[in-house]
Amino acid sequence: ANVPATQKVAIVASEGSGVHIKDHPVKLPSQLAPGECLIKLHCTGVCHTDLHAATGDWPVKPMTPLIGGHEGVGDIVAIGEGTINSPVQVGQRVGVKWIAYSCLNCEQCRKGYEQTCANVKLSGYTVDGTFQQYLVSYTNCVTPIPDNLESAAAASILCAGVTVYRALKYSETGAGDWVVLPGAGGGLGHLAVQYAKYMGRRVIAIDGGEEKRKLCLALGADHWIDYTTTKDIVGEIKKVTNGGAHAAVVTTASPSGYTQAIDYLRQNGHLMAVGLPSTATLDASIFFTVFKSITIHGSYVGNRQDAVEAIEIAASGAVKCHYQTKKLKDIEQVYDDMAKGKIAGRIVLDVNDV
Amino acid sequence: ANVPATQKVAIVASEGSGVHIKDHPVKLPSQLAPGECLIKLHCTGVCHTDLHAATGDWPVKPMTPLIGGHEGVGDIVAIGEGTINSPVQVGQRVGVKWIAYSCLNCEQCRKGYEQTCANVKLSGYTVDGTFQQYLVSYTNCVTPIPDNLESAAAASILCAGVTVYRALKYSETGAGDWVVLPGAGGGLGHLAVQYAKYMGRRVIAIDGGEEKRKLCLALGADHWIDYTTTKDIVGEIKKVTNGGAHAAVVTTASPSGYTQAIDYLRQNGHLMAVGLPSTATLDASIFFTVFKSITIHGSYVGNRQDAVEAIEIAASGAVKCHYQTKKLKDIEQVYDDMAKGKIAGRIVLDVNDV
Amino acid sequence: ANVPATQKVAIVASEGSGVHIKDHPVKLPSQLAPGECLIKLHCTGVCHTDLHAATGDWPVKPMTPLIGGHEGVGDIVAIGEGTINSPVQVGQRVGVKWIAYSCLNCEQCRKGYEQTCANVKLSGYTVDGTFQQYLVSYTNCVTPIPDNLESAAAASILCAGVTVYRALKYSETGAGDWVVLPGAGGGLGHLAVQYAKYMGRRVIAIDGGEEKRKLCLALGADHWIDYTTTKDIVGEIKKVTNGGAHAAVVTTASPSGYTQAIDYLRQNGHLMAVGLPSTATLDASIFFTVFKSITIHGSYVGNRQDAVEAIEIAASGAVKCHYQTKKLKDIEQVYDDMAKGKIAGRIVLDVNDV
Amino acid sequence: ANVPATQKVAIVASEGSGVHIKDHPVKLPSQLAPGECLIKLHCTGVCHTDLHAATGDWPVKPMTPLIGGHEGVGDIVAIGEGTINSPVQVGQRVGVKWIAYSCLNCEQCRKGYEQTCANVKLSGYTVDGTFQQYLVSYTNCVTPIPDNLESAAAASILCAGVTVYRALKYSETGAGDWVVLPGAGGGLGHLAVQYAKYMGRRVIAIDGGEEKRKLCLALGADHWIDYTTTKDIVGEIKKVTNGGAHAAVVTTASPSGYTQAIDYLRQNGHLMAVGLPSTATLDASIFFTVFKSITIHGSYVGNRQDAVEAIEIAASGAVKCHYQTKKLKDIEQVYDDMAKGKIAGRIVLDVNDV
Ligand SMILES: [Zn+2]
Ligand SMILES: [Zn+2]
Ligand SMILES: [Zn+2]
Ligand SMILES: [Zn+2]
Ligand SMILES: [Zn+2]
Ligand SMILES: [Zn+2]
Ligand SMILES: [Zn+2]
Ligand SMILES: [Zn+2]
Repeated sequence: ANVPATQKVAIVASEGSGVHIKDHPVKLPSQLAPGECLIKLHCTGVCHTDLHAATGDWPVKPMTPLIGGHEGVGDIVAIGEGTINSPVQVGQRVGVKWIAYSCLNCEQCRKGYEQTCANVKLSGYTVDGTFQQYLVSYTNCVTPIPDNLESAAAASILCAGVTVYRALKYSETGAGDWVVLPGAGGGLGHLAVQYAKYMGRRVIAIDGGEEKRKLCLALGADHWIDYTTTKDIVGEIKKVTNGGAHAAVVTTASPSGYTQAIDYLRQNGHLMAVGLPSTATLDASIFFTVFKSITIHGSYVGNRQDAVEAIEIAASGAVKCHYQTKKLKDIEQVYDDMAKGKIAGRIVLDVNDV
Repeated sequence: ANVPATQKVAIVASEGSGVHIKDHPVKLPSQLAPGECLIKLHCTGVCHTDLHAATGDWPVKPMTPLIGGHEGVGDIVAIGEGTINSPVQVGQRVGVKWIAYSCLNCEQCRKGYEQTCANVKLSGYTVDGTFQQYLVSYTNCVTPIPDNLESAAAASILCAGVTVYRALKYSETGAGDWVVLPGAGGGLGHLAVQYAKYMGRRVIAIDGGEEKRKLCLALGADHWIDYTTTKDIVGEIKKVTNGGAHAAVVTTASPSGYTQAIDYLRQNGHLMAVGLPSTATLDASIFFTVFKSITIHGSYVGNRQDAVEAIEIAASGAVKCHYQTKKLKDIEQVYDDMAKGKIAGRIVLDVNDV
Repeated sequence: ANVPATQKVAIVASEGSGVHIKDHPVKLPSQLAPGECLIKLHCTGVCHTDLHAATGDWPVKPMTPLIGGHEGVGDIVAIGEGTINSPVQVGQRVGVKWIAYSCLNCEQCRKGYEQTCANVKLSGYTVDGTFQQYLVSYTNCVTPIPDNLESAAAASILCAGVTVYRALKYSETGAGDWVVLPGAGGGLGHLAVQYAKYMGRRVIAIDGGEEKRKLCLALGADHWIDYTTTKDIVGEIKKVTNGGAHAAVVTTASPSGYTQAIDYLRQNGHLMAVGLPSTATLDASIFFTVFKSITIHGSYVGNRQDAVEAIEIAASGAVKCHYQTKKLKDIEQVYDDMAKGKIAGRIVLDVNDV
Repeated sequence: ANVPATQKVAIVASEGSGVHIKDHPVKLPSQLAPGECLIKLHCTGVCHTDLHAATGDWPVKPMTPLIGGHEGVGDIVAIGEGTINSPVQVGQRVGVKWIAYSCLNCEQCRKGYEQTCANVKLSGYTVDGTFQQYLVSYTNCVTPIPDNLESAAAASILCAGVTVYRALKYSETGAGDWVVLPGAGGGLGHLAVQYAKYMGRRVIAIDGGEEKRKLCLALGADHWIDYTTTKDIVGEIKKVTNGGAHAAVVTTASPSGYTQAIDYLRQNGHLMAVGLPSTATLDASIFFTVFKSITIHGSYVGNRQDAVEAIEIAASGAVKCHYQTKKLKDIEQVYDDMAKGKIAGRIVLDVNDV
């Protein structure tokens, strides 16, 4: 492979110092350890998690200096010497997700819980991520991308898509059951609407404004609730669902999203918590959680199989990410906009147009 | 059946008025509706829930005047005319539990969630309970008591036993997994230790004092933690279990029991919430619930099958309730002691010695 | 209710005597036991099971004389005096399915397995069925029919629909998984294709002939295999599914359908056996069942909740039964045609046009 | 490590040629590939599977020449250069089981089904096994042996123990449920009795003769049936269990064991098929499998986590293998005896006393 010695990356020098484009060395193919691969990236999504990584406001701290990013797609250009039985090959197009590496040997891994591996490595958090042109990743954990799915379309499936897909998959609902999706018009939400419909669930989309209403209904939502104009959201959900929803996938950072779900869920309903707010607590009534027999699942991104399935469903055409394409050098602006809540949908950065 | 016109009952005249022994009419066999049965009670347990019923401090209010109690055992002396296909017969010894009646026809019932039936009746809360000598109950929902289990030994199995049995049964743990039982020496806890051991779980018993230590270890607990002397409970659990417990059954009313469990549970651990505090909220970190992939299950007493199983295991001799016998007329004193936290273990009242 | 003293029924006088239209008394409303209801039927499906009932070739024998039929829809015109808490009311339109009555109290019922109730009554087999104008059924077990689903469209959902819906629901497959449906163009099969697609499964439809090919593809099947022209069915399934299907729903009476499924299923695949042949045995290799870790599920019609769900999905318009309407008096001809394998799709009889 | 150039092995030169002790080269530490380890064995169990391997009578053929054996325990003396993140270290005592290697990357592996890995290697079948003194195995797939479990006691847990443990674990039974164990006094059976009791199941042990009766009851079986003297085994099981057993773990090679289980299982019961007969078919009534809603699970040895759990339970003292110790050079005689059905319990060979 014809690999350059240096590349452009977006790097956070130290906690709170902001993100900046810099020249940065590329790890040479000969330096790759067994099990490592070098990926020439095409593009990368930007996720709210990247903002947490840049500001360091989570209770588990990122490394610094840090190259963020965990929704990248590119081609494998080299595989470390001594790698055995690699499931991917040089030349293959693959995706890199939040879970960069799981050991596959600890108790969590043996049980399929790769996200909570005792030896996990997190892209753009504990190892360098996808905000660069040449990324080192791990042959065992990258996700093959089918030919009929474009790189930019695949990027956000690798994090936002996998996250909502897994939450729905483990929501203990069946075909025909009602699922509530707060923030249904957003980055995670609009993917959740599509996965939920693909699985045969009935969807109540909650979000604000005419544009989001149109989007959600176009994606197949069975019922729309505008939180900016609806006075009794709980009451409306109970009416539409004839007694309460079977599940909710809550991606919000604010505790109120969780509290409210306890109220609008049907007895024996399932609250899928997927957001990772820095400090918020659940704040849900213990009495009603027990009395209504509610289950609250912490659902954390997804494992390799979840990623394969989420990508395959997207490749079939059933789920399409709505995204805007920008350039890697735009990342400072993207972070600013994201911090101010000005981003609608997902952003995908072309890493080669710096 | 030779049924008297009046009986002694313990009744709460109005919210907060306290409990008093009174004469009270007995519903005559000829007045029973189809599906109802009249039970001549032998004894009844007293449960913390009865105190909530008497003080009316739960967000869902009891009826008044109220005859409390929901852990009774007695003989069926009459079955309402027109009752079809009764699974129990006159002369049979049966138990009455918190769920006095489920319709068996609503969606919750069809799915086996009888506790959250749309038409549920709660013993000693929305219908008169077991603090009387002649109780009206429902043929479909009483629990047959096997010959080899004494009435007084069965009483608390019907509520405390069923509750912890179901919580363990649905804790998604397997044989050899570690289960933490805060309050292991108490009324629910000492039953939980025994059910957990019967199921092949490894048990960490948490409670305070030498007497409770001896009890828990005698019942088979694998490890004892005295919360009054242990500085780092979370640390000790993690050390003993090699990384955290697989599940915890939390019966406490205080939010701290739930918060602490999130910390000492292993990744993908299960918190079984069975307590029904009046106002407390979960107060658990959303970040760590998601990041550790914890599941929090509201587990609410049990259904008919749970009761049958819990009773059968007790009848086999594998689980024994530790209780003190008192008389129905002692109930005011029992409530006083309970309110002051002075009751150790379960109390069973002989309803015929008034 | 204005109920006539006699009605027309299709009756089998004794085993093997054939089915004949006769005058037959109607059970008067005043004669109904508590829990019974009288239904004025509109129509009834005819099912292969009815032929087994008429010929008496199953190892479990039907009663005689027998009025068959177990896919009926009509209006409740009376409910037995003394019925308590009926979930349905006089005037309501309901369906009657194979499981006419479950006690809701035995161990099987308490676990939700109403089909294997110790006290089960089977429509048109152990109690009189839907080949009549006025049917006695049970308030607890009839299935409410939503307004937006026509009676004739609902009829076959109550047996064929419920059966394949439950088999798919319990097939332990997920969205995107491959399900093979032998006989996909037939009465059960064409409903299975639609339910499977509604649930997000990928479907391989197997059947014979151009007409069935068109039907299956129009219903959404992802791949078609014509068994009359395909030499290597197992090989083709393995190729299309990249290694074998995740599940198969086998409705056939011949052992070869089961044997073949063991071969074309992926490792850890699920064979849903729903057919009830009189004498055939599974005949599957024990070696490969174990070595491939195949699970074979006996899946027997469905319970009340399965019926509610299957009907709701049909009422939403997602699943449509293809049927021909005939008259009750045509039943002898229908049986003849069925015995000769000349029936395509489902037959629904208008019971009022005799 | 001080590794000799040659060792003694028991080898089958070609299909049907019988097993013979030979000198055989040891793979040198410097020749180990990344991910391989060299184990100096202490002992190895002999399993019926080894006899199938030696005679080549299974539909999937072993390699030849073949060194059999798949229940070995020894110390790691070397790990291949370039091995990354090995979960085990040189000097550690480990066990080798039937599944010598799974790729951990294919769909089956990602779902935890390591036994059906697309790239699986089988000890003593497709790669050389434990009938030698120095074995090459794989760091990812060996099972650590706790200090408090002797090597000879661990050996048969690695195959017979894991197999019955997994079958019980996935039998969809709960505490208090009845499990039937045909062959309960045999090599697999006596371990199954102990695991089942540890899990809180009630056990019906079936076998023949006074010695086996004593063994089974001493191990905790709740009921004993002598098949040599009991006329109506099905009837007796139904009587003892009040309607049929919840599950059976069938290890036999003869089809009749499976057929009979369909009869004595309760409705919705589970038949765990773990035997691997060469040619037998299930031969079970399709009608009754469906009508009784029986599930038949092909359960094939176990994965790494099953092995860790089975070994941990044995190390706790709850499960003890009954075995006879012999020498590697006795293997021809052991095979002869096994072929004639003359072996009671498990045989463990000391590989260093040749
Ligand atoms: Zn992300
Ligand atoms: Zn790991
Ligand atoms: Zn209670
Ligand atoms: Zn109900
Ligand atoms: Zn029943
Ligand atoms: Zn039918
Ligand atoms: Zn073996
Ligand atoms: Zn594999």
